[in-house]
Amino acid sequence: MKSISYRDVDINGGFWKNRQDINRTVTAGAVYDRFYDTGRIDAFNVNWKEGNPDKPHIFWDSDVAKWMEGAAAILSKEDNPELEEKIEWLIDRVEENQLPDGYFNIFYILFKKDQRFTVRSDHELYCLGHFIEAAVEYCLVTGRDRFLRLMEKYVDLVYDIFCVNNSAGFTTPGHEEIELALMKLYRVTGNRKHLELAIFFIDNRGNNNGEAPSPYNQSHLPVREQFTPVGHAVRAGYLYTAMADVAIETGDEKLLYACEKLFENITEKHMYVTGGLGQTHVDEAFSLDYFLPGETAYAETCASIAMVFFCQRMLELTGDSKYADMIEKQIYNGALSGISLDGKSFFYTNPLSIDLDNRIKDGNSSGEDWFPGEDRVEVFSCSCCPPNVLRFIATMGSNIYGREGDCYYVNQFISSKTDRISITTDFPSGSVVNIKADVKELRVRIPEWCDKFECNKTYTTEKGYAVITDTDGEITVNLNMTPVLLEANSLVLDCAGKAALTYGPVVYCIEGVDHGEKLSQLYLDGRLKANTEYDEYFGTRVITADGYKKINQGLYSRYSSSNYKETRLKFIPYFGFANRGRSDMQVWVKVR
Amino acid sequence: MKSISYRDVDINGGFWKNRQDINRTVTAGAVYDRFYDTGRIDAFNVNWKEGNPDKPHIFWDSDVAKWMEGAAAILSKEDNPELEEKIEWLIDRVEENQLPDGYFNIFYILFKKDQRFTVRSDHELYCLGHFIEAAVEYCLVTGRDRFLRLMEKYVDLVYDIFCVNNSAGFTTPGHEEIELALMKLYRVTGNRKHLELAIFFIDNRGNNNGEAPSPYNQSHLPVREQFTPVGHAVRAGYLYTAMADVAIETGDEKLLYACEKLFENITEKHMYVTGGLGQTHVDEAFSLDYFLPGETAYAETCASIAMVFFCQRMLELTGDSKYADMIEKQIYNGALSGISLDGKSFFYTNPLSIDLDNRIKDGNSSGEDWFPGEDRVEVFSCSCCPPNVLRFIATMGSNIYGREGDCYYVNQFISSKTDRISITTDFPSGSVVNIKADVKELRVRIPEWCDKFECNKTYTTEKGYAVITDTDGEITVNLNMTPVLLEANSLVLDCAGKAALTYGPVVYCIEGVDHGEKLSQLYLDGRLKANTEYDEYFGTRVITADGYKKINQGLYSRYSSSNYKETRLKFIPYFGFANRGRSDMQVWVKVR
Repeated sequence: MKSISYRDVDINGGFWKNRQDINRTVTAGAVYDRFYDTGRIDAFNVNWKEGNPDKPHIFWDSDVAKWMEGAAAILSKEDNPELEEKIEWLIDRVEENQLPDGYFNIFYILFKKDQRFTVRSDHELYCLGHFIEAAVEYCLVTGRDRFLRLMEKYVDLVYDIFCVNNSAGFTTPGHEEIELALMKLYRVTGNRKHLELAIFFIDNRGNNNGEAPSPYNQSHLPVREQFTPVGHAVRAGYLYTAMADVAIETGDEKLLYACEKLFENITEKHMYVTGGLGQTHVDEAFSLDYFLPGETAYAETCASIAMVFFCQRMLELTGDSKYADMIEKQIYNGALSGISLDGKSFFYTNPLSIDLDNRIKDGNSSGEDWFPGEDRVEVFSCSCCPPNVLRFIATMGSNIYGREGDCYYVNQFISSKTDRISITTDFPSGSVVNIKADVKELRVRIPEWCDKFECNKTYTTEKGYAVITDTDGEITVNLNMTPVLLEANSLVLDCAGKAALTYGPVVYCIEGVDHGEKLSQLYLDGRLKANTEYDEYFGTRVITADGYKKINQGLYSRYSSSNYKETRLKFIPYFGFANRGRSDMQVWVKVR
Repeated sequence: MKSISYRDVDINGGFWKNRQDINRTVTAGAVYDRFYDTGRIDAFNVNWKEGNPDKPHIFWDSDVAKWMEGAAAILSKEDNPELEEKIEWLIDRVEENQLPDGYFNIFYILFKKDQRFTVRSDHELYCLGHFIEAAVEYCLVTGRDRFLRLMEKYVDLVYDIFCVNNSAGFTTPGHEEIELALMKLYRVTGNRKHLELAIFFIDNRGNNNGEAPSPYNQSHLPVREQFTPVGHAVRAGYLYTAMADVAIETGDEKLLYACEKLFENITEKHMYVTGGLGQTHVDEAFSLDYFLPGETAYAETCASIAMVFFCQRMLELTGDSKYADMIEKQIYNGALSGISLDGKSFFYTNPLSIDLDNRIKDGNSSGEDWFPGEDRVEVFSCSCCPPNVLRFIATMGSNIYGREGDCYYVNQFISSKTDRISITTDFPSGSVVNIKADVKELRVRIPEWCDKFECNKTYTTEKGYAVITDTDGEITVNLNMTPVLLEANSLVLDCAGKAALTYGPVVYCIEGVDHGEKLSQLYLDGRLKANTEYDEYFGTRVITADGYKKINQGLYSRYSSSNYKETRLKFIPYFGFANRGRSDMQVWVKVR
């Protein structure tokens, strides 16, 4: 199966149309402006001097490159001379400052020109990777290949240094990313060197090649022997994506097997219910099985986005709906929570629980505790997430449709149209999805959370899809969503005695701002009596449910069910938390 | 009311007879031997030289002094020439090495002779305090006052330095203890200087006298303005004890008020259900209200013992049974858990939850987490707790009886006899307490945990005591104990959805060693269907109760009551945990 590119898909209504409008009208400009304010744009003049403010940082190139990629994607849907001009100005600067041999890296050209490719952790190849992605996208959208040629020249240099002369101080990138970018490049250029270079980096990682074996950047084992996720979660996600990409191109079964095991272990032992990845702030990393503390979750926005990339490839490789299920989980939860509803501010980390008092207590008490941010902010010193969300939302269309010969796939329920199919739905608020399809066979995903999948057409089931061959007229699917409670494995200590409320793919939470009490006093009734209603502010339903408020009687008292007073709890979509001021928040709510 | 000293009380059967036998036959020797092994005894030769092993530490004097006090208390109940010889040898060394002006401190004489009383945090006065306590006890038990005279000479010197010449580098001790010791000394000597010096240290603490205001050692405010506990929990306990002592002697109402508020705030916002005190390892200290994490509880054994001392004074001051209730809580839980059942090894910290896997996970994940020890050990580098437990158990008799004129009190239900009263009971295993009393009025404590207090005599109630004037024949009290579940205030996040099982004053726990499953899988049935039976090993009852084992289905699954399989949980007394090998443990058990 091959996904149909967002370039060929128009999202024309509903939840994601609204999000894309904000992305286009607010986020693109806001991210650029903050990058401008912080010197990231000026840095492209490559003339920073000691004493100036805003000294360029090693990964600033990548921040801006991701913005360029997102802006390019927006250009595919609208004429926007202002955005185009900004991109062209940046490309001008790259062209102007690129070294004769093709090298381009602002930090190194300014400060360490003679030490290129000597420090594995300095993000040179990571920055190049993001430039490649931006250049590919810009070329595909505009048809102009100037930027792409500049990057191809740089890639040629890298190929010579790493694959021919072996003259670098290391063998594989300290931060993976270029591998998946090279696969994109290869698909556009058809140049085998681009594929070879990607495979070179994949094959040499963790392969006893003189680099320190480090789980941090997945260099502890050859990638084909990696079955459980370790280390920095974003690095891991980009690596796994590239591994799947190479498997697509080469049919490498060992790579595919490793990818399948990694997916299985991530989702069964290392993932928050929101899809959040990264269990600890130490190394921003995966940790041990079932260690999923909510209040100190790292769950970086970029890690959820990387998981989407990985699943896009795995879906193409296998045609198995579980990868589309995971994409759905991420796009409505772990990735989407990374951006505010107004499109201007961002979370780098996405906790599952906030207790503002306890942060003070715990901080006071140990003096060394770390907590995720409780406020969304407009720019970070390491500001990878904001432009990543920008490009992620701008390219959302790529997640909807797939094709394999005469068979078409509906992977996500998003109002949109492509060449031969259109979808109309108010999902995830509504359960009904109307599809028109001028195709021989249509496969519509049956979501893993869906108990009662109804369709007005007869269908068979394969790999989690309803296979429909009678595609005449309107196909109507009803997902029959109702509020559902989830519980966690009891080895997840932090979720003991708690449940998480969901509605379709959307995970919900309670926020202090909606409740007069401390959230720690509130319990949800396990019998779940809930009402839902559409809420304009969040763009989907909010839920109220029966619950209890615990009446406190001193520090310790007799355990008694009469200590609980009935109350109603208000649940909002997790992606919308922390939009209405600083507040306590819980995804996992105590249940009784 | 005045407590009747352990010297005048014989514990002659039941739970505490057994504990005192072990204390006498095992603990006294074991603590001495470990102190010998670690150089603490040899240090009294005051001839340590560079290159020798076991360099004396600033607080070693106090470790040995506490042992001397405990050994002296044991001598009051039995002839033990070996113990006596060891004490006399130590007194010989003190006499031999005491400086002509009375000063004695091994570390300072060896290493900092010219810098006496210049460093507030160096424990000189703390060590002297423990020497005073040992000397008073040894004198009261043996009638021999040599040691007492040596210490009186030292106290005279301290009086001159602090109260007359004001020539020390600080005004009040960095570690409180000497204040309560001086009050003991004053009661034996009647020398007003001893009272004056105690009051000097009490009055000057936190009183803007040039010392840095520090919550760590309760120097942030004048003591009469301290209403909430702060800082190092053992320091705090010793200070509060001395404050109450001074209030007893002087009738100082402001001191009494502060003590009452401190007690109230400790017990209502800062205390573990076991009586454990010290919410964080950082500074071994009290922390903010309701911050009571079980797995990282500090709950130092010495802090519980200090709380007993404080409550002994408050009980004498007020005649209010709540202080005897607190002594009972500590002697059966927080303090007693500090020593192994075999009397040889000790806990410094007393956690309320151990999950060995999670310790690894959390440690791995943050790289900076602290956990209490999971194994009892025979000696610590800072080994204050073992000799503190020794003296605490040896002087247990002081907690049982009180007298105020013709009125006698039964504060604790311990088989024993004193001059005019005797108690026979198998409490805390059994509920029946038989008392014979040749007194005009007897007050028997009605425990706060007791729902159904029965007595074969008519009684009125006052300050939590049954006041009995018909004392002819045997008085039989039935406390009608049954297993009882407690819950915590919902602001104690760590106890959410959990209950603690108690039987009378004894708090129970579950241990991994009794359950085939991970404790995290186990739930207690909130309707509490429990059986109890006497268990020889623990010396009181163990309890089995209906519960559930959660059946795990992947990482996240539909919340359903059918995921729980019925099982039985075995509860053991908390004081007996960690006696049967390294094991997971929970006081607070999830309930459903």
